[in-house]
Amino acid sequence: MSIGVGIIGAGIMGADHARIIAGQVAGAHLVAIADADASRARAVAAETGAGRATGDPYELIADPAVGAVLIASPDATHPDYAIACIKAGKPVLCEKPLAPTAAQGMRVIEAELSAGRRLVQLGFMRRFDPGYTDIKGLLETGRYGAALAFHCIHRNATAAPHFDAAAAIVSSCSHEIDIARFVLSAELTRVQVFRARKSSLATFDDPLLVVFETDKGQIVDVELFLNAQYGYDVRGELVCETGCLAFGPAINTAVRHSGVTATSLAADWRPRFATAYRLQNQAWIGSIASGRPAGASAWDGYIVTTVSDAGVRALDLRSPVTIAQEKRPALYG
Amino acid sequence: MSIGVGIIGAGIMGADHARIIAGQVAGAHLVAIADADASRARAVAAETGAGRATGDPYELIADPAVGAVLIASPDATHPDYAIACIKAGKPVLCEKPLAPTAAQGMRVIEAELSAGRRLVQLGFMRRFDPGYTDIKGLLETGRYGAALAFHCIHRNATAAPHFDAAAAIVSSCSHEIDIARFVLSAELTRVQVFRARKSSLATFDDPLLVVFETDKGQIVDVELFLNAQYGYDVRGELVCETGCLAFGPAINTAVRHSGVTATSLAADWRPRFATAYRLQNQAWIGSIASGRPAGASAWDGYIVTTVSDAGVRALDLRSPVTIAQEKRPALYG
Amino acid sequence: MSIGVGIIGAGIMGADHARIIAGQVAGAHLVAIADADASRARAVAAETGAGRATGDPYELIADPAVGAVLIASPDATHPDYAIACIKAGKPVLCEKPLAPTAAQGMRVIEAELSAGRRLVQLGFMRRFDPGYTDIKGLLETGRYGAALAFHCIHRNATAAPHFDAAAAIVSSCSHEIDIARFVLSAELTRVQVFRARKSSLATFDDPLLVVFETDKGQIVDVELFLNAQYGYDVRGELVCETGCLAFGPAINTAVRHSGVTATSLAADWRPRFATAYRLQNQAWIGSIASGRPAGASAWDGYIVTTVSDAGVRALDLRSPVTIAQEKRPALYG
Amino acid sequence: MSIGVGIIGAGIMGADHARIIAGQVAGAHLVAIADADASRARAVAAETGAGRATGDPYELIADPAVGAVLIASPDATHPDYAIACIKAGKPVLCEKPLAPTAAQGMRVIEAELSAGRRLVQLGFMRRFDPGYTDIKGLLETGRYGAALAFHCIHRNATAAPHFDAAAAIVSSCSHEIDIARFVLSAELTRVQVFRARKSSLATFDDPLLVVFETDKGQIVDVELFLNAQYGYDVRGELVCETGCLAFGPAINTAVRHSGVTATSLAADWRPRFATAYRLQNQAWIGSIASGRPAGASAWDGYIVTTVSDAGVRALDLRSPVTIAQEKRPALYG
Repeated sequence: MSIGVGIIGAGIMGADHARIIAGQVAGAHLVAIADADASRARAVAAETGAGRATGDPYELIADPAVGAVLIASPDATHPDYAIACIKAGKPVLCEKPLAPTAAQGMRVIEAELSAGRRLVQLGFMRRFDPGYTDIKGLLETGRYGAALAFHCIHRNATAAPHFDAAAAIVSSCSHEIDIARFVLSAELTRVQVFRARKSSLATFDDPLLVVFETDKGQIVDVELFLNAQYGYDVRGELVCETGCLAFGPAINTAVRHSGVTATSLAADWRPRFATAYRLQNQAWIGSIASGRPAGASAWDGYIVTTVSDAGVRALDLRSPVTIAQEKRPALYG
Repeated sequence: MSIGVGIIGAGIMGADHARIIAGQVAGAHLVAIADADASRARAVAAETGAGRATGDPYELIADPAVGAVLIASPDATHPDYAIACIKAGKPVLCEKPLAPTAAQGMRVIEAELSAGRRLVQLGFMRRFDPGYTDIKGLLETGRYGAALAFHCIHRNATAAPHFDAAAAIVSSCSHEIDIARFVLSAELTRVQVFRARKSSLATFDDPLLVVFETDKGQIVDVELFLNAQYGYDVRGELVCETGCLAFGPAINTAVRHSGVTATSLAADWRPRFATAYRLQNQAWIGSIASGRPAGASAWDGYIVTTVSDAGVRALDLRSPVTIAQEKRPALYG
Repeated sequence: MSIGVGIIGAGIMGADHARIIAGQVAGAHLVAIADADASRARAVAAETGAGRATGDPYELIADPAVGAVLIASPDATHPDYAIACIKAGKPVLCEKPLAPTAAQGMRVIEAELSAGRRLVQLGFMRRFDPGYTDIKGLLETGRYGAALAFHCIHRNATAAPHFDAAAAIVSSCSHEIDIARFVLSAELTRVQVFRARKSSLATFDDPLLVVFETDKGQIVDVELFLNAQYGYDVRGELVCETGCLAFGPAINTAVRHSGVTATSLAADWRPRFATAYRLQNQAWIGSIASGRPAGASAWDGYIVTTVSDAGVRALDLRSPVTIAQEKRPALYG
Repeated sequence: MSIGVGIIGAGIMGADHARIIAGQVAGAHLVAIADADASRARAVAAETGAGRATGDPYELIADPAVGAVLIASPDATHPDYAIACIKAGKPVLCEKPLAPTAAQGMRVIEAELSAGRRLVQLGFMRRFDPGYTDIKGLLETGRYGAALAFHCIHRNATAAPHFDAAAAIVSSCSHEIDIARFVLSAELTRVQVFRARKSSLATFDDPLLVVFETDKGQIVDVELFLNAQYGYDVRGELVCETGCLAFGPAINTAVRHSGVTATSLAADWRPRFATAYRLQNQAWIGSIASGRPAGASAWDGYIVTTVSDAGVRALDLRSPVTIAQEKRPALYG
């Protein structure tokens, strides 16, 4: 009954996923690691007890012991590996993004439509974060009336060296794009990007304030600040008609020392979202057993790409951009 | 040495000010209350121990026992009373706004310029709120680098009956306009207004998201929500280069009961800003004794009016509006 | 490589453990459920996918497919089942208490000493709660100096019908006894019990204040309040030489509604310690694979019983009681 | 109508009180400062605008311009000055303690009894701290049932050089003795003192855990830690039948920096209780005007001395001490 999992990609994310599958998820066992750099695959396999390591991801996909594939390789490779899995009839948990471009993402959609079934779960792990699921659950009780606005904070201590403002929208803000759609059960229809005063510690325009509108008339504003220095900080507040729902990282412990009462912030997204990753991966395994898809779909991944593309245009144009609404195929109903 | 204070206006704000002057402020004593409705003036005078009550504010201004005047009458009357005080050489603490229109406000400026000295302090009491003064003080240590963005929340439980979205900007957002200028030591240069999904409990477009830009390149975003139902809630966060400074109401006490840990929110602005009002009024009395102006000036009041006018235009036009920068007279240097 | 787990006891705790093993723990699979009430065993087995159900726990212990046994049956049965597992050479996770009396607990110790190895992990799940592990970890950094005192709060909404003050010490305070020893790496040497004003909603003396002293001279005070009405509330503060470390339940979300900002408290210990149970059970499975014991030992369970017995005497005598210090066998070194 | 205040004592507390009376309190003006060191009196008088300074406190008491006297001189001098004021018929706000010994305190009581009226308010300023008044007010709503236990934390960064454990009880714990009586409307009947592990940074047994019982059967436990290093920290929690009321210092502002979210703690009691001191002094002035005593009475001061004496005996004896209950004279009804 245990599902054999193969992981493509033995970088930071792939190694994390290997540890999660091997050490924190019920109903699965880690079978194989693939990485273009086979030695890296072997190292992760050795650490996590995966029996097999390969330099060829397609070999892993074809492996009969691999019942499901987790893709954590470089972004550009996602569509081809996902499509190969779909053709092999194997469930996939694919790290975001679905693809570097919407056109490439559409190829994955088309592969699922051809297969006539959903096999891809997109790794928007925040859908499993207790903060977001709390506020979505509270919203859906109806006790607070309709959601009117959603304020989001997304700060990293430091941006990766290659980042620029467009990457901030495509890579970082994509999480808010997905989660806003998820929490609000709404589509984003318009986007505008404000450049705040540029931090002298940033190499690009940082922070940004990205303001979305939804098809329900809601405002979603996102502060993106990738060089915030002090830590990783993702939180927000959902404004409803009769109440406001604020969420943030779980806090257990407060230290009184040196004149202050202090609670720790995560250094980066991995400790901040450790619970979300675990629950996501568990839900994926559960969805394979139950046949009921969980989490974000390939379609969600595709839509996030189209929205973030609009965000980049809004950044460049310094004016609002309307987001084309695409017809959702019945498969993703 | 004690300063005799006369208060014009015996409504909610005037009565509050009378209690503050009589009961919480050193170096002053309450002399007289004036209100167009003389019976109302008498009632407040009786309650607070002010010896005199009158239906004629100009009589109060002329009263030799009145060394300083606090104006808390209807908005439209502010300029005339303020100008009369200036002409009488008496220091004024004038509730906001300075005047209903910028042109009327300019009359007060001109009166001060003619007098050759500043006699008017505008009642932007938030400049004395410990939250705002904390973050301004922390910013000015330099420890957190430059301020880049300022997020503001301004929620009332319910809007006054006559309110509309324009009034939300003119009357409510004026506080954020003043305090952002104060905290950031910057001028606002551009404004855009987003209408969120309208609350079904509101009679006008509410909430709004108002986004300002400053002459230092900073973004100031203000959520204005005047029918938030759950209470009065003013707080915010100042985003700096190496740290973020969040402020809100002072919280002393938490109650664990019925499944939750709860802290109380103020019902309206008066308990929320009780400390600010007290410190403001004390600073006003102190400034009269010392001859060094405190708090917001008439010029600040005038500029806030020009900015909120721009905000109303941005609301109506549904597009960004550039705010004309006016030359500050040397008197307000 | 996956370990087959059998669970004895299909009550609330047994069913919870079955769900955790089947749905949240890596490296294990649920094989069988035993309960004196075989129909109850079958119900839990059906819900959780355990293949087998039996009315005879010894049959489960003997089952070759069962590689490890989780005991969640009534307290009085713990020693016999644990000893049978030890004799069968099967690792055990035994819910607390080890045994209803110290003498009975000693039989389990003797069985392990005879076997020459530790097979029993006691279910003091708080050793895996992030709050306690945080403060223990922080203490052990040395950054805060030595621990001097430990304040503990232990509140339940309502006591079970059969409870009395002695049961509060034996059943509830046993958690603090274990965790204080764990966090402080110390033994408790003396105990005194204060009866507070009796709640009119309690059927016995409730709350109590239990004050322990440790062999390091530390004070551990525990407020036990089993009819606190408002919810389940376990938290505390470790007082060190240069800092204080406070812990409590993880909080993700705050709701502003009806005049308050509120965070939810758990209704009982199961949601409060859900993470602790999951991590405990995962650590148990990991310890079987690694051969390195995790969590509390049978010896810890035995000592907790001797300490809580002393607490009951102190309650009855209304005076301090010295706790006999027992020599720890080398096996538990 | 303004009351002329004379202050005896120009040390830290006297100077603070001079600033409060001169700068923060309505209805009063500062007339004179007396200190055995006349130059110190002159310095404080100069800073605060008091017109007169003297080396002779009795001269100040006799001064017709002095309508009320604030005593902030060394403890041993309190009774004589207080009695002199009573004889002069002048209201007194006397810093705690009333007297170094109960016998000396009784002399003040006798003076008031002879005078047939209460003229002395004791400076237990915590009775005006919003945290304590909040929880007392909430308790008295009846919504939370009866108070059962009261947990108190009292930490200083560092003890004064001459302090020892007895001084910790007499000087520091006296605040909790008074405030527990005030919040609970109860008398303390028994006391026991536990010595925690001695901090290596302390020169005496520190921290202590002091456990009181009240005539209503409640437990009051006080952690006294005068060398806590990290700051001044006074807070607590009142345990009631259906809810718990926690209080602490007012917090306005949180700083996110260097990996933590931090709120500041006061360095010592003066900023922590700045609001309490202001409200206390204002209430004193108000009570003079109204003729209705406010705050703690001389009798409260006397009782606190008897209770803290019992605490010192309990410390020395290392066993519980019963506190003699004294008959309250009708004057203090």
